[in-house]
Amino acid sequence: MTSISRVSTSAAAISEQEIFAAHEGGKLSVESKMPLDSTRALSIAYTPGVAQVSRAIAAEPERAATHTWASRLVVVVSDGTAVLGLGDIGPAASLPVMEGKAALFKTFGGLDSIPLVLDTTDVDEIIETLVRLRPSFGAVNLEDISAPRCFELEARLVEALDCPVMHDDQHGTAIVVLAALQNAFRLTGRDAGAQRVVISGAGAAGVACANILLEAGITDVTVLDSKGIVSAGRGGVAGVKADLAARTNPRGLTGGPAEALAGADVFIGVSSGTVPEELLATMADDAVIFALSNPDPEVHPDVAARHAAVVATGRSDFPNQINNVLAFPGVFRGALDSGARRITAAMKVAAAGAIAELVGEELRADYIVPSPLDPRVAPAVAAAVAAAAEG
Amino acid sequence: MTSISRVSTSAAAISEQEIFAAHEGGKLSVESKMPLDSTRALSIAYTPGVAQVSRAIAAEPERAATHTWASRLVVVVSDGTAVLGLGDIGPAASLPVMEGKAALFKTFGGLDSIPLVLDTTDVDEIIETLVRLRPSFGAVNLEDISAPRCFELEARLVEALDCPVMHDDQHGTAIVVLAALQNAFRLTGRDAGAQRVVISGAGAAGVACANILLEAGITDVTVLDSKGIVSAGRGGVAGVKADLAARTNPRGLTGGPAEALAGADVFIGVSSGTVPEELLATMADDAVIFALSNPDPEVHPDVAARHAAVVATGRSDFPNQINNVLAFPGVFRGALDSGARRITAAMKVAAAGAIAELVGEELRADYIVPSPLDPRVAPAVAAAVAAAAEG
Repeated sequence: MTSISRVSTSAAAISEQEIFAAHEGGKLSVESKMPLDSTRALSIAYTPGVAQVSRAIAAEPERAATHTWASRLVVVVSDGTAVLGLGDIGPAASLPVMEGKAALFKTFGGLDSIPLVLDTTDVDEIIETLVRLRPSFGAVNLEDISAPRCFELEARLVEALDCPVMHDDQHGTAIVVLAALQNAFRLTGRDAGAQRVVISGAGAAGVACANILLEAGITDVTVLDSKGIVSAGRGGVAGVKADLAARTNPRGLTGGPAEALAGADVFIGVSSGTVPEELLATMADDAVIFALSNPDPEVHPDVAARHAAVVATGRSDFPNQINNVLAFPGVFRGALDSGARRITAAMKVAAAGAIAELVGEELRADYIVPSPLDPRVAPAVAAAVAAAAEG
Repeated sequence: MTSISRVSTSAAAISEQEIFAAHEGGKLSVESKMPLDSTRALSIAYTPGVAQVSRAIAAEPERAATHTWASRLVVVVSDGTAVLGLGDIGPAASLPVMEGKAALFKTFGGLDSIPLVLDTTDVDEIIETLVRLRPSFGAVNLEDISAPRCFELEARLVEALDCPVMHDDQHGTAIVVLAALQNAFRLTGRDAGAQRVVISGAGAAGVACANILLEAGITDVTVLDSKGIVSAGRGGVAGVKADLAARTNPRGLTGGPAEALAGADVFIGVSSGTVPEELLATMADDAVIFALSNPDPEVHPDVAARHAAVVATGRSDFPNQINNVLAFPGVFRGALDSGARRITAAMKVAAAGAIAELVGEELRADYIVPSPLDPRVAPAVAAAVAAAAEG
């Protein structure tokens, strides 16, 4: 069994004072790409020169894509209803997270990005607002929007806007989970198609994980919510969960975590619950356990390691951090590079494959995904996503 | 009589190629204020550190003002209905202008700014959209929105939002016109209260000019629109023009440009029309002529100079350029510095005074306003506006 120890990191030493100091005045800055220090520069960037560019776009609308920033601009949109593990804290309190996300888009994806936080939680109103703002941006990253509203919002926005839209809490997580799982399978000599996977949590991340695993050919997926195994026969299963029930749980299990985990090869925790050690002990040999709840994993990785060959968490201070930043900068970059109007399932699976592949021959039980700081990741993901978009 | 010659400028030599090259990919960039190059930095700017900041804002909403960028962020909002002299060319084609404006906000006012261009021209919808986005920004600069919609939009937005809102095409122009006029009066030894002023144009700039001149104590203002002198007795005068008619034209003039200009001390052109030389010849001695239409002034400054002691235009290649950039960066900076909820008439008059004062003892017929590049302007305007806000 693997022994899990904390990754050496100075993160533990970060004081509250340091965090607040770093956030003073916010984390983003808008800069002019050309210095406006002469009459000549003003005449180029503003009047009278800019009129020629405006006139050109009016005559040929496609020139907006090459001569404004909009086509490369990702808006990070939230209503503040499901912020990190903090819940419905509102749009203003969500803004530091959205600023951080925009900073990550620039740092890792080379994309300009701005946060737009909305003082409405009405799905119709959020869609209407973004449709009205459509000429201002090139892609939408939905963030920290509560389930099940997030499913309807994303699906309807994809239809309403002719540009890439992705709810990162769903698909960013799912892409990195699939990448990590592919490498865990490789490490333990497993055939993906034959695995029994249990997902604990039927929120944004749980549903998206189930979908991407099915998309990638993993057929035996069982999803648990707070009432037990999501199945068609269970009373009160509606909406997204009814859809999930129809496509998962092929062996028709009923019951709860005990019934789901007995003999399972993989446990993926994306809830804020816990899982008892005695149930993990009933999993298959050389099991794979991803306990991704943050900041408190469903099971401590040391405990998980007693029953698993590979353990991952969502935390930066343990090995195998399942971090969305491995996915979203490259996914949006690839989608925008290719001019894709949608981020398809195939593009998401391609992104996962690119992330997994970068681990290469360095694959070990404590290295199944690249570091979030690995500069190779976003370009590789972008290339794979762009290829899948065009393919 | 003053002889007007073109200001030496390299602007004339700007090629279309150079303009388009400078606009490639847009003119703005969003940057992270801290480098995200270590696990530690990620843990401060994003999870888990950012959760502390979000939690603090949720508990004390006023901390959003100090720990996000929103309270210092100016959104430059347009629906593309009155872009420069190009008319209703739509939101996408207006974007290069709004990007330029955002670049000027940063360069001269030190404020972060983003363009939001709207695919709706409905005043209700524009207001609704900005109300929903309220937690995302700290101030609204309305830009290139057609009259008379711009008057209703601004007035209603001021009521709907608890933050500074200003339509720059109205008030930016008016502030710089007042500044220039104050110095023109000083130069020609005039008493502001006794002057007869004719404003040609009753659009966004014309109405705001009339208002700020009245606010500053200039009582004899006559406004011309395409049908002649705006007066209460004229048929079909409604809305903003009816309001204007009630407060201007104290001598009850009727007729057109000829009747308005006979004996007038000041002509301010903010229309796209022209004014015949023979009418300028009927103005008072040592008249003041501001022919601000762009790119073609209402009268060529050489012609105007035959009949005026002071001539100004909106162009950078003649002396005395009436350029909004002298006003808006400092006005918004001062409003945000002082925490003002509104940009009041007193704040606008204070801004004009600060601009005029900077000319000081260098005052000449060809130097009645500072250069748009003068770095003293925005800080002086900001200080005056902040003082007027608090006073």
